[in-house]
Amino acid sequence: MAVQRLLIVGGVAGGASAAARARRLSEKAEIIVFERGPYVSFANCGLPYHVGGEIPARDDLLLQTPGSLKARFNLDVRVNAEVTAIHRTARKVQVRDLSDGREYEESYDALILAPGAAPLRPPIPGIEREGHFVVRNVPDVDAIQAWLRPGVAERAVVVGGGYIGLEMAEQLRRRQLQVTVVEALPQVMAPLDPEMAAWLHLELQANGVELRLNDAVAAFEAPRDGENARASVVVLKSGARLPADVVILGLGVKPETALARAAGLDIGPRGGIRVNEHLQTSDPAIYAVGDAIEVRDWVTGAPALIPLAGPANRQGRVAADHIFGLPARYEGSLGTAILRLFRLAAGCTGANEKILRQAGMAHQAVHLHPASHAGYYPGAQPLSIKVLFDPDNGRLLGAQVVGVDGVDKRLDVFATALKARMTVDDLAELELAYAPPFGSAKDPVNLAGMAAQNVRRRLVHLAQWKEALQLDPARSFLLDVRSPEECARGMIPGAVNIPLPQLRRRLGELPRDREIIVHCQSGQRSYFACRLLLQNGFQARNLTGSYRTWDAAVRGGAARL
Amino acid sequence: MAVQRLLIVGGVAGGASAAARARRLSEKAEIIVFERGPYVSFANCGLPYHVGGEIPARDDLLLQTPGSLKARFNLDVRVNAEVTAIHRTARKVQVRDLSDGREYEESYDALILAPGAAPLRPPIPGIEREGHFVVRNVPDVDAIQAWLRPGVAERAVVVGGGYIGLEMAEQLRRRQLQVTVVEALPQVMAPLDPEMAAWLHLELQANGVELRLNDAVAAFEAPRDGENARASVVVLKSGARLPADVVILGLGVKPETALARAAGLDIGPRGGIRVNEHLQTSDPAIYAVGDAIEVRDWVTGAPALIPLAGPANRQGRVAADHIFGLPARYEGSLGTAILRLFRLAAGCTGANEKILRQAGMAHQAVHLHPASHAGYYPGAQPLSIKVLFDPDNGRLLGAQVVGVDGVDKRLDVFATALKARMTVDDLAELELAYAPPFGSAKDPVNLAGMAAQNVRRRLVHLAQWKEALQLDPARSFLLDVRSPEECARGMIPGAVNIPLPQLRRRLGELPRDREIIVHCQSGQRSYFACRLLLQNGFQARNLTGSYRTWDAAVRGGAARL
Repeated sequence: MAVQRLLIVGGVAGGASAAARARRLSEKAEIIVFERGPYVSFANCGLPYHVGGEIPARDDLLLQTPGSLKARFNLDVRVNAEVTAIHRTARKVQVRDLSDGREYEESYDALILAPGAAPLRPPIPGIEREGHFVVRNVPDVDAIQAWLRPGVAERAVVVGGGYIGLEMAEQLRRRQLQVTVVEALPQVMAPLDPEMAAWLHLELQANGVELRLNDAVAAFEAPRDGENARASVVVLKSGARLPADVVILGLGVKPETALARAAGLDIGPRGGIRVNEHLQTSDPAIYAVGDAIEVRDWVTGAPALIPLAGPANRQGRVAADHIFGLPARYEGSLGTAILRLFRLAAGCTGANEKILRQAGMAHQAVHLHPASHAGYYPGAQPLSIKVLFDPDNGRLLGAQVVGVDGVDKRLDVFATALKARMTVDDLAELELAYAPPFGSAKDPVNLAGMAAQNVRRRLVHLAQWKEALQLDPARSFLLDVRSPEECARGMIPGAVNIPLPQLRRRLGELPRDREIIVHCQSGQRSYFACRLLLQNGFQARNLTGSYRTWDAAVRGGAARL
Repeated sequence: MAVQRLLIVGGVAGGASAAARARRLSEKAEIIVFERGPYVSFANCGLPYHVGGEIPARDDLLLQTPGSLKARFNLDVRVNAEVTAIHRTARKVQVRDLSDGREYEESYDALILAPGAAPLRPPIPGIEREGHFVVRNVPDVDAIQAWLRPGVAERAVVVGGGYIGLEMAEQLRRRQLQVTVVEALPQVMAPLDPEMAAWLHLELQANGVELRLNDAVAAFEAPRDGENARASVVVLKSGARLPADVVILGLGVKPETALARAAGLDIGPRGGIRVNEHLQTSDPAIYAVGDAIEVRDWVTGAPALIPLAGPANRQGRVAADHIFGLPARYEGSLGTAILRLFRLAAGCTGANEKILRQAGMAHQAVHLHPASHAGYYPGAQPLSIKVLFDPDNGRLLGAQVVGVDGVDKRLDVFATALKARMTVDDLAELELAYAPPFGSAKDPVNLAGMAAQNVRRRLVHLAQWKEALQLDPARSFLLDVRSPEECARGMIPGAVNIPLPQLRRRLGELPRDREIIVHCQSGQRSYFACRLLLQNGFQARNLTGSYRTWDAAVRGGAARL
C-alpha cells in the first residue's frame, strides 16, 4: 500500500530532512509538516554565532521558508502549528494553530515525529527571572539580541559548560562582555575525559573567561543593595554571588516525548522515544527521528541519547526511505562532535573512558601530541590526541582530539575508522594525504595506531598521567629524558633528568630494584627510552602523553578531580 | 636465529624509518645505514618549499644527522657511502666510500634495500646543458639556489606537470619568476581525471603560470642570436621556442633497481623490485622498501609503482618488524596524494577513471560541489569531489577532491573508507564532526555517498560532463533548472532554462519524445528536478557535477581532450 499522506511533526533538522527526501521518493504523496515554532529548517547550530556577530545576518539562519519548501518540494509546511495528540487507531493527529487557536485534525498513512529536545530548566529558585535565556531557536536568539542592546549588559553568567554554554561564552566574550561559566561537574564538556577537557579550561582562562567548576547554582536572586545585576545574582552552592546582566542556561536537553507518551508509544530506558532499526516506534505507522529518540551507541551497544544535527538529518532520510519502500536502516550513533572554542578545536568520537568504565568494557588509553603537519613546514601546531582501544582485540573504541589546527580532520578519520570497526593495526596502516602543508609522512592517526600497536605487542607498557601525580619514590623512579632546556621550563616533581642521547652511557645511574616511569615532552622519546631500558633488563613504563598531558591536567585542573 | 647485523641501503624515508624501528626492536643488533648522498633523513617533500622561501632555513630540511642518529638510536650511519654490489651467498655487501674512494665489505644477517627512485632524464638533445635541475635531494636544491641568485633568472621553464613540477612552478612564481609549465599530456597531474585536473589548469593561469599542454620538449638548445636564455631555449614539438634562465625537470621517476638487478633479485612487471607481503625480495634475507619496489594496488590488485613518502615510511617499519620476528604485512597502497597549488589543494585516493578502464573494472562516477562547511557560516568554499564506485556492489573505488578549504580532510576520510573497503552506503552513514566552522550536518562525504546511493537504487540516472559537450537536439533536451540570475552568468550552449521552483507548473514545455538532460549549478537541484520529471513520466538524467564541472572542464581545457 503506497503512502498517500505523510505527516511530520517538527520542521527543523530531522523533520525537514525527512520531508524533502519523502518528496523526492514520491511526487504524489501529500506531505504536511507541522512546526510549533515560527520557523522551519533554521540553522540551530549557528544560533550562538549570530549572537556573537560571526554570522551577522539573521536571515542566514533561515535556510528555508514554508514558501521556498512549497516551491521547491511542494511541501505543505505549517508553522505555529502544534500537534497536540495522536489518535493512533484512527490514524489522525490533532493540530492547534497557535496563531488563532483553531483546532483541526489531519489523517495520515505514515507519521514521523521529529519534535527535538527541550533545554532543561531545573527547578532552581528564581530560574524564571527575566534576563535568563536558553538557546534553542530563532526567537530565543532574537530575545537575547534584544536584551543585549549595546551598553546595557556587561556581565554574563553561563550556567553549564556543554557545547551551547561554551559556544555562548565565546560569543559573549566576542561582544566584550565579562563572562563566567558555572559548571556543577569538575570539568566542562563531559564527552571529553578530564585531562582532555583541561585544555578547554586553559583556553577559557587564556581568553578571560572565569570558570567555576565543581559548583552548582543554588538560586537566581534579585540583586541586593549594592549589587548591580540587570538579570539576576547567580548564587552558587559554594556561597559565591555572581551578579549577571544576562544569564545563559546551557544545562543540557531532554527529549520531547510528551506527545509520544500521551499516544502510548514506548519510551526507552534513557527517556527517549524507543525506535527499531528502521526508526519505527512501537506503532509501525509512526516513525521518530532526531533528538527525541534513543539510538544504539555504536561502541557499547547500549541505548543512548545523542542529540546532534548530523544523526538527526540522516535519520530523517532513513525514515523517509523506509516509508517509501527503500531498504534503510539506522545502525547507531558514534556521538562524533566538535567544538570550536577561541583558537582551539576539541572533539570526540566513540566512547570515552567514563563510558567504557560504566559499560565494563576493557580498554587501554594512549595519549600523544604530534604536530598538525610536517614539523619542518611553517605553522605546525601540536595536537593532543587520546585513543581508546580494546587491549584484547585491538579494536578502536573512541578518540578525543584537541588542538589549534587539523582537529576536525583527525576526528573524521577516527570516526570513519570506528564506523568500519577498525583496529589500531588498521590505523597504523592508513594511507592518508601527505604534503608538508597538510600532514606528515606518518600522520598523527598513524602514530596513534602505532603507539597502540606497540602496547598490544607488549613492546612497551604505559603509565597514565594520574599515576605521575603521586608516585611513591620507594616503588617508582621518575625519569625525564628531555633536554635540559626543556626541563628548565618545568618538570614533574621528583623527576630525574637524563637526556635520551646520554641514556645508553648513564644506565648505571638508574635503579634495578624499582620500576622506572619514563617521560619526555610528548611520549615518543620516552618510548625510545623504554625500549632501551627494557632490553637492558630494567623495569620501565612509558608515561603516555608525557609532560604535556601531565602539565595540561595539572594546570587545567583535571588533577584536582 | 636473531639478526645480529642489519644493513640498510638508503637513509631517507623508508631506510631511516626501518633503521629507527629496528633499534627499538633490538638494542643489541649492529645496524649500519649506507647513504650514497651527503645527507640522511632529509625532508624530501619539503625541497620545493625551500626553493620558494616558504621553508626559509635550509637546516629545517635536515631532520636527522648521522650524529643525532648515533646519539638517539646508536645507529652507524655512513653518508657518501655507495653500496656497489651484494654478494648474496656470502651475505656481504661491497661498499665504496665516495669521499676517499676506499672499498670495503660488510656482512649482514638481513639487508634492507631502500634506494628510492631516480628522476627520469630522457635522452632529449641538450638535456645535460647547464641550468637544468632535478629536485631529488638537498644538493639539487643547493644547486638551484646558487643558480637562482637574485637578478640572474627571470624566466623558468618547468618540464612536466606532476607533483614536483607544479610545486616548483608555484615556488618559482613566489620568487617572481615568469614560469611556463610544459606537459606532453593533455593535462597536469595524471592521477586526477581530466575534468578534475582542469581546476589546476585554471589555477595556474590565474596565478600567471603559462601552461603548454599536449606539447613535449624536442630539444634544449643554446640561445640563438637575439634570444636571451641563461640556461637553454626549450624547443617544443609544436615548434615553440621558450627561452629559459632555469629549467626544472619534473619528468617523473623510475625505481633504482641497478643494485638489485645486479644481485639477481626479481624485478616486477612495472620495473620495480618485486617483494612479498613481508617486503622480502626473491632472496628472503633481503628486504626492499620505498620508491624502488612494486606494491599491490589496493583497488585493482595489480602491481604498481607508488613513489610516496607515507607508504615508504610504513614499509620501513614493516620490514624491520618482520626481520625481528613481529607479525607484519604490507597490504598494498592506495596512492593517496595531495598537492597544494597556490590557493587550491587537489588530491586523490584509490583508482581514477583511467586506471579503472585499463583494469576493466565496472565503475560509475558522481561529481558534486558541496560547501567546505555550513553555508550559513562565513568562509565556506565550494569543493569539487569526484567519487568512483562499483555500480554492482557499491564498493568505493576512488575519490578525487579539489578546492580551497577542507580538501585534505575529505581525502583522508575517503582513504580510510577505501582501506576499510566501504561501500557508498557506508559513506552516506558516516558520522563526521559537525559544527558550523568545520562541516555540515550532511558532510560532503555523506552527500557523495548519498548521491551514489541514489544511482545504485535507480532513483536517478546520470549523464557525464562529456555528454553535455555535444548533445544532439533531436535526441536530447538540455534543461537548466537554475535561477535566471545564475544563467545570466553563463549557460551550456543549447540549454533551456526553467527554474526549479517553476518546474511543476511548466511540465507542458518539456518533450516526452526525447531524453531530458537536467543540470543546475552543482547537481543537487537538478537531481530534485529529475525525481520530479521521472515520477511524471519523463525520461530524464542528471548531469552529475552540472554546470560547475562542465564549465571547469571547458575553461580548463579538459574538453579538448
